[in-house]
Amino acid sequence: MNDIPEDPYPSAFSYLTSDEFERLKAFSKDKQTPFLYINLSTIEKEYDELVGLFPFASIYYAIKANPEKQVIDLLSKKGSCFDVASIYEINQLLDQGVNIDKMSYGNTIKKSEDIAYAYSKGIRIYASDSYMDLEKIAKNAPGSKVYIRLLSEGVGADWPLSKKFGTTKDIAVDLLVKAKSLGLIPYGVSFHVGSQQRNIQSWDEALTKCKYVFDKAKESGIELKLINMGGGLPSSYIKATEEMKVYAESIKEFLTKNFGENIPEIIIEPGRSMVADSGVLVTEVILVSHKENEDKFDWVYLDTGKFGGLIETIDESIKYPIFTEDGKNKIGTVAQKEVILAGPTCDSADVLYEKYKYKLPEDLKEGDRLYILTTGAYTNTYSSVYFNGFPPLKVYIAD
Amino acid sequence: MNDIPEDPYPSAFSYLTSDEFERLKAFSKDKQTPFLYINLSTIEKEYDELVGLFPFASIYYAIKANPEKQVIDLLSKKGSCFDVASIYEINQLLDQGVNIDKMSYGNTIKKSEDIAYAYSKGIRIYASDSYMDLEKIAKNAPGSKVYIRLLSEGVGADWPLSKKFGTTKDIAVDLLVKAKSLGLIPYGVSFHVGSQQRNIQSWDEALTKCKYVFDKAKESGIELKLINMGGGLPSSYIKATEEMKVYAESIKEFLTKNFGENIPEIIIEPGRSMVADSGVLVTEVILVSHKENEDKFDWVYLDTGKFGGLIETIDESIKYPIFTEDGKNKIGTVAQKEVILAGPTCDSADVLYEKYKYKLPEDLKEGDRLYILTTGAYTNTYSSVYFNGFPPLKVYIAD
Repeated sequence: MNDIPEDPYPSAFSYLTSDEFERLKAFSKDKQTPFLYINLSTIEKEYDELVGLFPFASIYYAIKANPEKQVIDLLSKKGSCFDVASIYEINQLLDQGVNIDKMSYGNTIKKSEDIAYAYSKGIRIYASDSYMDLEKIAKNAPGSKVYIRLLSEGVGADWPLSKKFGTTKDIAVDLLVKAKSLGLIPYGVSFHVGSQQRNIQSWDEALTKCKYVFDKAKESGIELKLINMGGGLPSSYIKATEEMKVYAESIKEFLTKNFGENIPEIIIEPGRSMVADSGVLVTEVILVSHKENEDKFDWVYLDTGKFGGLIETIDESIKYPIFTEDGKNKIGTVAQKEVILAGPTCDSADVLYEKYKYKLPEDLKEGDRLYILTTGAYTNTYSSVYFNGFPPLKVYIAD
Repeated sequence: MNDIPEDPYPSAFSYLTSDEFERLKAFSKDKQTPFLYINLSTIEKEYDELVGLFPFASIYYAIKANPEKQVIDLLSKKGSCFDVASIYEINQLLDQGVNIDKMSYGNTIKKSEDIAYAYSKGIRIYASDSYMDLEKIAKNAPGSKVYIRLLSEGVGADWPLSKKFGTTKDIAVDLLVKAKSLGLIPYGVSFHVGSQQRNIQSWDEALTKCKYVFDKAKESGIELKLINMGGGLPSSYIKATEEMKVYAESIKEFLTKNFGENIPEIIIEPGRSMVADSGVLVTEVILVSHKENEDKFDWVYLDTGKFGGLIETIDESIKYPIFTEDGKNKIGTVAQKEVILAGPTCDSADVLYEKYKYKLPEDLKEGDRLYILTTGAYTNTYSSVYFNGFPPLKVYIAD
């Protein structure tokens, strides 16, 4: 694939070398589609890159992005910490031998009994963003460290960010004071700029808010120590982003601008950016259909769809790079047509891309394989249990 | 619940008697939430009602709406036929002793090998809407009956209908001629007006199109015999619909208007309307949070959400009636507040209702149970495998 620069989305799949693509195809040949192929070596590279670029931060992998056993084993061996969203994730990590002090309970929404369970296992640091939750933590995990999550706007992020998590900077200060009065350790703040965030300035805005909370808390006699910067670092979808290096340098600069020499403990929680690039979803064309005589676009139906792992195509939020068999799905190499892509279920909502038109070969036919890249995050576990009878997305892991 | 008429949505839960709600609560008491409770007797009632109201139609239950074993067993015993979307559904039905001639392969998107498999098992009637698919059927299920699906607009339906399925009436005629030339039996047409369709006129428009295709096909020497009217009949969500009786009478009238005394064989494929009313999703409040000082609405976080079975809340399409413990979540009975409802995962997209504000008791607290009604369709199998570590939605079946 020396001709990658010809592609309209050059940054999108520069991580998949020609050799690796050939290896994937050889591996896939006798496998029935659809399935997700995860390349562990890509994850290892991403981890090493993050460690190199963020020497000032502890890495807590957001296991919800991809909790496959081998992914966890690899990252655990590499020394990563883990951000967990539920007691089920805690149990999985414990089962895989991850030490409890490597975990942070990052979900601001948790049952009292789940906090108690996490505490009984030894978790001593929790995210929070509300009075009720703080009271629950104080009661069920007494004396623990807490950090308060700040609201973010999410502007510039591919995956929508709602007001579901976080609170304003002033309420955050109140909550830290409250935490102290409840016997907890008010330890820091967190934010999340939105998943696949393209606008690096978002970190500046968020860190400026953090500084405000640090200062105000200090006025109340609380010395904060931690900023959990959450996720938001990018993966290689079709829309170009800056390189990770640019993100790291900018974030370092924003930290220095706000905190000078006294940069707090920093946690980052990469999920998407750690694992997305490792995955290729291998799928097959079931049907190509020309709907209406006056219609310009053919419909291409694949054997996987929104309910088989590609739920992040909701509102066409995430746009994955798509390779054809020859790895050359590029304008000029073969005759192309713009198509609408849809999944195999009887659900009319199971359409992947209709507004955005992917270009596929004009002679596309049943059985042709498509390789949906950058599908290592938020795919396999999102998959539905049995919708339309289809089994959940199968996963193969390669070293 | 004699005071149901006081409720702003009186049609929404008239099917759940006070006795049945008490029985559900007694059953639920010692069960850990979240779970879906399915009342088989409601399904039996709905089936009997449909048989009574549509004596001119064969009922093919769309098993994708809810494929629980006991649901299939009940409907099979009652004499229902089944609309299947995949070979996996065929296998499930065969495993449960359903005769193959009770099945119709209603998915227009199917692999050649799946058609061959269905044919080898004995399926002799297929839906289609494209040349490529017809060729696949002719090759892999020679001599079978086919019916061509017509495009519908879906206006008036709660769940969005796309152009994913169906074709124009003129292409339909071409396809029927093509089917004949391929050695298939051009047997009829089908349509789907859109799930939870409120506008009964939609059936009139669709049947007028069918008549056009019947007439045009006749000009080409093809005598069509079947209209598959698909689904679209309503369930009891919060927005009132006409009673099923009104739908049945109107549809009968539209049929007569178009076909006079020579009404073709009619198939209906109830999914939602057959099973939705049978289900109650029992969930618990995890957290109530007041986000911002200037914000009017509290956030209420439940232990189930978009990825735990409630995916049809996408774009707030389907609005379920919600009961509190006393079955009296009605204006005037207790102090109410408008809230935003969200699920338990760390995903910011896991918000159920934000634009539409449900009213819940002002003193709502952790552990309070909510009963989400009309959740018997398109919930359990849509549930994600393991997102955020949460297990798929559990189901209990009551006689």
